[in-house]
Amino acid sequence: MEGGGASTPPGEGGFSSRLSRALPILRWGRTYRPATLAEDGIAALIVAAMLVPQALAYALLAGLPAQVGLYASVLPLLAYALFGTSRALAVGPVAVISLMTASALGDIAPPGTGEYVAAALVLALMSGVFLVALGVFRLGFLGHFLSHPVIAGFVTATALLIAASQFQHLVGIEGSGTTLYEMLTNLAARLPDADVATAAVGGGAVAALLAARAGLATLLTRLGASARAADLATKLAPLAVVVVTTAAAAAFDLAGRGVDILGDIPSGLPPLTTPSFAPDIWLQLAGAAVLVSIVGFAESLSVAQTLAARRRERVDPDQELVGLGASNIAASFTGGYPVTGGFSRSVVAFDAGARTPAAGALTAICVALVAWSLTPLLYYLPRATLAAIIIVAVMSLFDFRAILRTWRYSGRDFAAVAITIGTTVIAGVEVGLLAGVAASIALYLYRTSKPHIAVVGLVPGTEHFRNVSRHEVVTSPEVLSLRVDESLYFANARFLEDRVTELVSERPTTRHVVLQCAAINEIDASALESLRSMNERLSARGVSLHLSEVKGPVMDALQRTELLGELTGRAYLTHYGALADLAPDVVARGGREAP
Amino acid sequence: MEGGGASTPPGEGGFSSRLSRALPILRWGRTYRPATLAEDGIAALIVAAMLVPQALAYALLAGLPAQVGLYASVLPLLAYALFGTSRALAVGPVAVISLMTASALGDIAPPGTGEYVAAALVLALMSGVFLVALGVFRLGFLGHFLSHPVIAGFVTATALLIAASQFQHLVGIEGSGTTLYEMLTNLAARLPDADVATAAVGGGAVAALLAARAGLATLLTRLGASARAADLATKLAPLAVVVVTTAAAAAFDLAGRGVDILGDIPSGLPPLTTPSFAPDIWLQLAGAAVLVSIVGFAESLSVAQTLAARRRERVDPDQELVGLGASNIAASFTGGYPVTGGFSRSVVAFDAGARTPAAGALTAICVALVAWSLTPLLYYLPRATLAAIIIVAVMSLFDFRAILRTWRYSGRDFAAVAITIGTTVIAGVEVGLLAGVAASIALYLYRTSKPHIAVVGLVPGTEHFRNVSRHEVVTSPEVLSLRVDESLYFANARFLEDRVTELVSERPTTRHVVLQCAAINEIDASALESLRSMNERLSARGVSLHLSEVKGPVMDALQRTELLGELTGRAYLTHYGALADLAPDVVARGGREAP
Repeated sequence: MEGGGASTPPGEGGFSSRLSRALPILRWGRTYRPATLAEDGIAALIVAAMLVPQALAYALLAGLPAQVGLYASVLPLLAYALFGTSRALAVGPVAVISLMTASALGDIAPPGTGEYVAAALVLALMSGVFLVALGVFRLGFLGHFLSHPVIAGFVTATALLIAASQFQHLVGIEGSGTTLYEMLTNLAARLPDADVATAAVGGGAVAALLAARAGLATLLTRLGASARAADLATKLAPLAVVVVTTAAAAAFDLAGRGVDILGDIPSGLPPLTTPSFAPDIWLQLAGAAVLVSIVGFAESLSVAQTLAARRRERVDPDQELVGLGASNIAASFTGGYPVTGGFSRSVVAFDAGARTPAAGALTAICVALVAWSLTPLLYYLPRATLAAIIIVAVMSLFDFRAILRTWRYSGRDFAAVAITIGTTVIAGVEVGLLAGVAASIALYLYRTSKPHIAVVGLVPGTEHFRNVSRHEVVTSPEVLSLRVDESLYFANARFLEDRVTELVSERPTTRHVVLQCAAINEIDASALESLRSMNERLSARGVSLHLSEVKGPVMDALQRTELLGELTGRAYLTHYGALADLAPDVVARGGREAP
Repeated sequence: MEGGGASTPPGEGGFSSRLSRALPILRWGRTYRPATLAEDGIAALIVAAMLVPQALAYALLAGLPAQVGLYASVLPLLAYALFGTSRALAVGPVAVISLMTASALGDIAPPGTGEYVAAALVLALMSGVFLVALGVFRLGFLGHFLSHPVIAGFVTATALLIAASQFQHLVGIEGSGTTLYEMLTNLAARLPDADVATAAVGGGAVAALLAARAGLATLLTRLGASARAADLATKLAPLAVVVVTTAAAAAFDLAGRGVDILGDIPSGLPPLTTPSFAPDIWLQLAGAAVLVSIVGFAESLSVAQTLAARRRERVDPDQELVGLGASNIAASFTGGYPVTGGFSRSVVAFDAGARTPAAGALTAICVALVAWSLTPLLYYLPRATLAAIIIVAVMSLFDFRAILRTWRYSGRDFAAVAITIGTTVIAGVEVGLLAGVAASIALYLYRTSKPHIAVVGLVPGTEHFRNVSRHEVVTSPEVLSLRVDESLYFANARFLEDRVTELVSERPTTRHVVLQCAAINEIDASALESLRSMNERLSARGVSLHLSEVKGPVMDALQRTELLGELTGRAYLTHYGALADLAPDVVARGGREAP
């Protein structure tokens, strides 16, 4: 039932299986066929045509020289092909991580300086080491603390920030600001200085890309092209826009008319680089490296799993951590910057028929060829074209539907989204992400700190007990049956204690309190103290405390304490059994033997 | 059933009842009798005899002039008598809060300077305002996030730090260091310079106090004293030690022989002071004020509730916040520093028969008299005597039994204790407390992120389902029944998804998965996405997903989503009903109609 070569059933032992788990290429590589190579090759060409302009654009977004984007698209892809488990994931520079990189490095050095570029290597290395460590120690679950709402909010807010920052380049004004407010203020102040020629190139590029996305495929099919060719043309639109605007810039000397062009990009394969090991820069970047890693992993894993599910394959989250970590380490030693699996390119690779991780390796070879010999062709490429490519790419990241769904489903989850978007937009990506995670944890803790406690009664004719305020049930004036809908731990132990005292005060005829513990999955040391004090307080009023339906693991733990000995009442196996003992009249009136 | 005047049944309306809730004195004051006054008066005298030396000692521990301790023991007690609800709580300077004050103010100014004393006023005011705000907005539940293990660990570690810091004064070497390591290093380096006369006074005082605590009462009773008189003598031991050592210091000119004495303490009632409202000092002290408030509240509330339970009374946590807040505000305007309800003095007040908060007011009058006219008598009081009083007082704070109990009960809770003690001792009180709270929350989240998921089967002859690995049950090869023992939220949603996929892979005959949701108290937006993707993944394998025993509130939420429409299976009211439908053979073999 499980996928094929790339999937790894858990729990399989033996050295060779562990080796092929750590190096998934040993699985899929053995059965590699020429036919697969052809499929992978076509996918690789299509992805490379998308990747080259994006890599240049994202490197500039990160505040780095354009060629760094190309360097980050060669060895990291080969490393992922060796260690990764997803067959379609297209690793490389992505928008969100590029913005986070700019934000992290901005505190270290001014963009464009050698120090800034060197710090990018350190960030990639730290992120890589951290990801590998998470994978090796099987700590991938830490990524789960980035909840769906926080990711949706963060990605949407980041896309907004990126679009605003690129809009400045699109109209040819000097970029400035790291928060949305600063960018918009800058835009408002300098918009009168906007360059008309640049705005024409940028606006034209955006229009062409949007048109290609909206209708090119339909149009071409209608004109008689095959569906596949039409689809291909749509995907090559960014490349076409690059070619056309570069040619126009060269032909009409747009640089002389004020259009910013890319200029000289050094030719050559990615250089071998050595990231700094100075402790102070490691300390300065540690927090950012953790955030970059976790966001990159969360984004990449969700793409990989979505695509794998479509082909009934499976990705191994811990091995994915190793794969992405290896990619980032490779980036740091070959002049790159942090990378991860990107959404749009991965979908393209999947649709274009990438069958194995070899597709990524072939993409890397294409990019290496570009870096080696074709960079002079990029001399006249207008920056506004790259800005247009980024803006159109991040438009697909606005996830308003997910946010709307969250709004309808739960106020608490929506609050997490709103806090994430608000702080990201106002205070930047790092603060925004941390605030989102902190808020989602705080909201969860808040809810569990005030558990739902229902007074329950016997549903006539059954052994079931339900909430007295939702169902017609039979109760006894002497026995107070309470169902606690939450594990008991330090944050809610006192709440239960107070609530029970209150309920007993309202019902002076109460002689017995029975806590139905079926929904209690744990009782921690604080809650244990609370139960003991509740027992003591109830006993002082002449009320005895009983437990029912305590789960196996919870009972095992309680048996190591004084509680069961001190308890004024008993621990019953079932709540029905407790009532049969304490209030036989209720069972007689409502039990399952009754009519 | 409820206590008496001081208790406040919740939910009672009307202006006069709300007024008497906000000002509890309106309840107990109306029925105040001369006989009660006599009882309160005796208790007040005994507490004052304990409080005066402790107040002097704790003020020095906080790095403040000794008289500040007296000032903090007058108006704050009157304020608590007006607003507090506990009848025995003895408010005033306490050891742990004094150490936290020293730690917070140490960053602002050197101890002993006017700036340092002024900062103490600000800390008290901020803490008071924060406590009142918590009480007014009914946020007392925030205190619950200080779990039992964290409090036990923190108090024990703080007691250790205090004992170490006071040991330096006990042997007459110059104190230094804020962490245990620094203090011990300082002790080791300077012990050769210890002053023999000081050590004799200090050692003698400790020996006398320990002897009094260990055996004085027994000895006196054996010698024919009444139990009450013997008990009283034990409580007055600190006062006796103060009198004897002061007299000895005066008679034998111990100051001339190197013994540090208290010296001139200005006489007079507490001065009226105005705390600074400079924003920068408020910002600097904000974090410390929050910690001081929460620790003070947690300590005070636990004492108040323990004592109230013994007399079947109740304290109102939110009103207690207001009472303690008012005390601290009073302290800030009358030359004091942060105060709270102390454990040992409260127990003494309770045992001595304090009947109403008036006992606290009478104690305040006694302290005011001392401050007004008796401070010249304290001129010769050796500091070593005060150090001895502190050391013996904090010895009762070592809560090794609670720590041991935690160790036996749960590794997770013990880890929280160990982290709290370790960081408090190594990195100081503020870091230690925050680390403890963070660790207990992280450990809780970690546990809930890997929920217990049991494969269940039908217990023959019943409608109950239990874990297949713990019980003899009937199962079907086509139906996989899973009980999830935790609410589903972002941290564990993916875990469930992976676990279900794994279990289904292990059982290729599975056609139906039924999730028994009785222990699921909430499904958040992330978990909802996970359920939808699980449904899709199972459907791709030809397995349908069903839910059973979904709770009312959870079902209400799910009905607002697409999940129930997309579900390949059904949502059943009971798990037994689901099995009766999907696997009638199981019900026939094991159902309750079967033999």
